[in-house]
Amino acid sequence: MSERIYLFDTTLRDGEQSPGYGMTAEQKLVLARQLEELGVDVIEAGFPAASPEDLSGVRQIACAVKHARVAALARCNDGDIDAAARGLEPAERGRLHLFFGTSQLHLQHKTGLDRDAALDLIVRSVRRGKRLFSELEFSPEDATRTDEDFLIRVVQAVVDEGVQVVNIPDTVGYTVPEEYTRRIRLLKERVRGIEGVILSTHCHNDLGLAVANSLAAIQAGARQVECTINGIGERAGNASLEEIVTALRVREDCLPFTTSVRHELLYQTSQLLSALTGVSTQPNKAIVGRNAFAHESGVHQQGLLKDRRTYEIMTPESVGAPPSQLVLGRHSGRRALAARLTELGYTLSAAELNHVYDRFLKACEVGKALDDDDLIALALDNRPPPEPPYAINLVQATAGTVKPATATVQLTRGGETFAACALGDGPVDAAYSAVDTITGYPTQVVEYELRAVGTGRDTEGEVLVRVQIADKTFSGRAVDTDIVAASVKAYLSAVNKALSVRNQIRPPQVAAAKRAPQIIQQL
Amino acid sequence: MSERIYLFDTTLRDGEQSPGYGMTAEQKLVLARQLEELGVDVIEAGFPAASPEDLSGVRQIACAVKHARVAALARCNDGDIDAAARGLEPAERGRLHLFFGTSQLHLQHKTGLDRDAALDLIVRSVRRGKRLFSELEFSPEDATRTDEDFLIRVVQAVVDEGVQVVNIPDTVGYTVPEEYTRRIRLLKERVRGIEGVILSTHCHNDLGLAVANSLAAIQAGARQVECTINGIGERAGNASLEEIVTALRVREDCLPFTTSVRHELLYQTSQLLSALTGVSTQPNKAIVGRNAFAHESGVHQQGLLKDRRTYEIMTPESVGAPPSQLVLGRHSGRRALAARLTELGYTLSAAELNHVYDRFLKACEVGKALDDDDLIALALDNRPPPEPPYAINLVQATAGTVKPATATVQLTRGGETFAACALGDGPVDAAYSAVDTITGYPTQVVEYELRAVGTGRDTEGEVLVRVQIADKTFSGRAVDTDIVAASVKAYLSAVNKALSVRNQIRPPQVAAAKRAPQIIQQL
Repeated sequence: MSERIYLFDTTLRDGEQSPGYGMTAEQKLVLARQLEELGVDVIEAGFPAASPEDLSGVRQIACAVKHARVAALARCNDGDIDAAARGLEPAERGRLHLFFGTSQLHLQHKTGLDRDAALDLIVRSVRRGKRLFSELEFSPEDATRTDEDFLIRVVQAVVDEGVQVVNIPDTVGYTVPEEYTRRIRLLKERVRGIEGVILSTHCHNDLGLAVANSLAAIQAGARQVECTINGIGERAGNASLEEIVTALRVREDCLPFTTSVRHELLYQTSQLLSALTGVSTQPNKAIVGRNAFAHESGVHQQGLLKDRRTYEIMTPESVGAPPSQLVLGRHSGRRALAARLTELGYTLSAAELNHVYDRFLKACEVGKALDDDDLIALALDNRPPPEPPYAINLVQATAGTVKPATATVQLTRGGETFAACALGDGPVDAAYSAVDTITGYPTQVVEYELRAVGTGRDTEGEVLVRVQIADKTFSGRAVDTDIVAASVKAYLSAVNKALSVRNQIRPPQVAAAKRAPQIIQQL
Repeated sequence: MSERIYLFDTTLRDGEQSPGYGMTAEQKLVLARQLEELGVDVIEAGFPAASPEDLSGVRQIACAVKHARVAALARCNDGDIDAAARGLEPAERGRLHLFFGTSQLHLQHKTGLDRDAALDLIVRSVRRGKRLFSELEFSPEDATRTDEDFLIRVVQAVVDEGVQVVNIPDTVGYTVPEEYTRRIRLLKERVRGIEGVILSTHCHNDLGLAVANSLAAIQAGARQVECTINGIGERAGNASLEEIVTALRVREDCLPFTTSVRHELLYQTSQLLSALTGVSTQPNKAIVGRNAFAHESGVHQQGLLKDRRTYEIMTPESVGAPPSQLVLGRHSGRRALAARLTELGYTLSAAELNHVYDRFLKACEVGKALDDDDLIALALDNRPPPEPPYAINLVQATAGTVKPATATVQLTRGGETFAACALGDGPVDAAYSAVDTITGYPTQVVEYELRAVGTGRDTEGEVLVRVQIADKTFSGRAVDTDIVAASVKAYLSAVNKALSVRNQIRPPQVAAAKRAPQIIQQL
């Protein structure tokens, strides 16, 4: 039988208090609801004494959350404890989370108390907390750098006072698994009555060891894990919730522990946090990163095409992530290229494949992976292109605070010149409509990115645009000092690719009637 | 005495082959030079058999690198080994890195060989390698999921053949520290002559354990670590070089091992990789992330102001990172606010500070940290503002492929209306020049970001602009469906802040003569 581990999520407290991850009270509420849905046991909602906004944020979460426990942080002083009580007053299951820095560095530089005075303050605060809360957690902050004997004394004192949870934080991300294991075991051996409380772990990732330390603590007897979505938190962040629960699941053979988390919501929760804070995870973030189930190397793709387990220890579906991706780039092999082209409707002979593969490698030289449209273009090589591409003759737009914006676009194709003008919400929208009027082939823009290249006013704008027609996407990229010109160049590059294969794809379903009035004229 | 650990950097091979991290041959060369400067022992330069570009990339690096060893990857076949030999031909110290998947999954689905046939192929390949190279490394791919007895047979065979390095890869990021430790120890006990070879670790981060597993292997007897800058690599990436070497340094008390890395170049190397690939690390990346030495919470800031060691286990200087940052946001306390305002030249009384702090917390409500200019504006509250701010009446620009772009801007201030037009490389540049003409206070744009909010053509543009005057920066942010309007709104917001404190700062040194011709008119 696997033992149950309680998950204490501190995304809204330790995570939210790190630079760049601030959230409004409303955003916090959205995330709290998702965390409850995800199935965490405790949601640390904030630090009510920090500001009136924090307090009201905690109150709102305490009102909304029904099943999970809601915790609030407090220092060992009456004001903090009372603020936490006001914050958690509406909670069905509130928990006071008291902390006090017990390492010599923290005693000396933060509170200036000696050990006896600190112990006295801790005990008095726990007693005050007990009068206001039915559930108490205590954290000797910087526990991993705290003198062993003093740590035992502190934990003994709070256990004697009846706290239900004792957390042993690695506040500065300093410990290593063996050392942390020893410390947890020591407390289990030396503190009377410790078997009646839940020991908890709270690890920071300053040395990249937060998950390993958390798992070590669990193996040593901790039964609560404090962690955050995407591993956000002070400095290098906290232990990542999704990594811990996935490790427990994938390696249940040697880590026989379970949690109440719904694994299939991990990816969605990670995405929600990124959307709320505007900060994405890096591509190689474990479990939830864009690359976590992406494979470009030929050796790996070849294995995956035969059996996914060769290079995947869990399925993307199991964590709610999009299906595995075989990204085609310079490192990909013939087999993966052929497989993808077949999916796209192009079955090639061995000789054709060799030829296309050579061109494919050349196209990859710039180092970037290729999109479906690039692959189709390669497969179509040596066949007459269905239609010549459009080229830009002129783009002229008016923009600013006077709405609507207008744009005039002149394109040439096969010796003919076409012009159209259109209105729009902004100059880019207007110009894209004008292009669509000329091509008669409106598309849906599914991605638009403008990146500044260079600095100061000499900056050029690099635009990446991705358009969708039926279920296929086509991308274009262009650079210009004028952002409207760059936008149209990138768009036309994508549209030309779409047009070149339009016999292969169903016509788009975009209703032209939805657009602003347009004028087209063949010159 | 600390034992020496050899660092095998595979950023240019395992890192570069992951989606989005592709580099051109030139970019690889730049990074290889930096890696040598950083002091790694072995640079894995690529997989020459993958493509002609990979081969020529390896050759270029082999020519350029003088002190580090240069390794090239090869499967167990003659073509791969010969390609590696061509790639490493110019190397002063080349190393062939042979690999073969030895787990049952890999045998069955990748090569279809039984164990005896696999062993035979491995031995034949090692022999061919030995004829062409003086230094050989062998990796039984997926070693952590390989049957123990077969792994021992394979390692015994390659040791008998005289390879100098045996790497035990955790190819799919599956193992946990204890298990990996046992496996390394088992090989040390059971393989004859193992004491004459270097055992190596190569860990992936699929469960967040790559660094912990690498350190566990070192403690069990491995003396080479394969890792990458920023932890990039297949899927969730490889063990991060900067985390491993920093853990060894910070925790030398319990991990008595040294490397030849120049720690003060870690940050710079990380930044270089991000610049070359266009992929940044997430803010909370350990050691090298933007937040690794940033602190917003009041409790932490208070500790840091007294002694940095309360919340930092290493100095940013020790890894070449910019100084610790006290980020002022909702979680910050009075002390940190007062300290920063004093630095900015505003010394406040206790009563003033209380008042400013209240307003500061309100200003933070939206969840974002405040810039220096926001703080100065708060400190100036209750004093008459030096000048009323400018407001936008009208922005009208022409943009497109016809250069130069032109813009007309009408601003009002204190009942007066001003208009100016200007030319520029693009509509934003032109409009900013027109604003400068009106204010008579040109600034330097040091940052300009346009982010799409929403999807499709209904997207709005959110512009963040940062301008610099003397040594102070001021930021503005605005949203509009029209990107030119959004750009001007954001710029004016920053400029208004600058104007409101212009008595406190030296006038800007930007030469107006450098600008395009401008026309100003008071209406």
